Amino acid sequence: MARPERHVFVCTQNRPPQHPRGSCGAKGSTAVLQAFWAELQKRQAYEKVAITYSGCMGPCDQGVNVLVYPEAVLYSRVTPEDVQEIFDSHLEKGEPVERLRAAEAVW
Amino acid sequence: MARPERHVFVCTQNRPPQHPRGSCGAKGSTAVLQAFWAELQKRQAYEKVAITYSGCMGPCDQGVNVLVYPEAVLYSRVTPEDVQEIFDSHLEKGEPVERLRAAEAVW
Repeated sequence: MARPERHVFVCTQNRPPQHPRGSCGAKGSTAVLQAFWAELQKRQAYEKVAITYSGCMGPCDQGVNVLVYPEAVLYSRVTPEDVQEIFDSHLEKGEPVERLRAAEAVW
Repeated sequence: MARPERHVFVCTQNRPPQHPRGSCGAKGSTAVLQAFWAELQKRQAYEKVAITYSGCMGPCDQGVNVLVYPEAVLYSRVTPEDVQEIFDSHLEKGEPVERLRAAEAVW
């Protein structure tokens, strides 16, 4: 792919069901990833935005974690319903979605 | 983890051995990832650098692909032997390793 203006990393780390850390996978990250890909396709934004799944980014208890570069904005507890707003505000206009940002103590 | 100054994404995508696209996994990305983690530990650079494995980033034929943000520098054909130089030059001093950069047509 060409270099994107913004690059979204969706944590899809999985862990066994009883694992004490939990995981973004157990919190529904596959559905979040699919929502990002569907929105990317709907908008045909392939030249501007890249969506990549990733391994663990740390704050598992606050997943699903979604990280956007180059701004280094980490979103917590992302659901498929949040994806359209992230596209509209952050990925298209460069305005991060404040209500979804990870706490400062976390990131 | 705290927000890092630089974030390294190592593609660890795998595909079946006969798949026509190949994969960074088949080209040795696990060893590259382990080399990054070992170097991170050796330097105790946890406050400055994050290392995360990722899914496919596109140019599979030129893997192992390693992407560094916030500069959005993509490195191609990375081997474990390149990792120390990437740390010394790019991750510590902010000077990308030109000889390893992906071609402009790719990224």
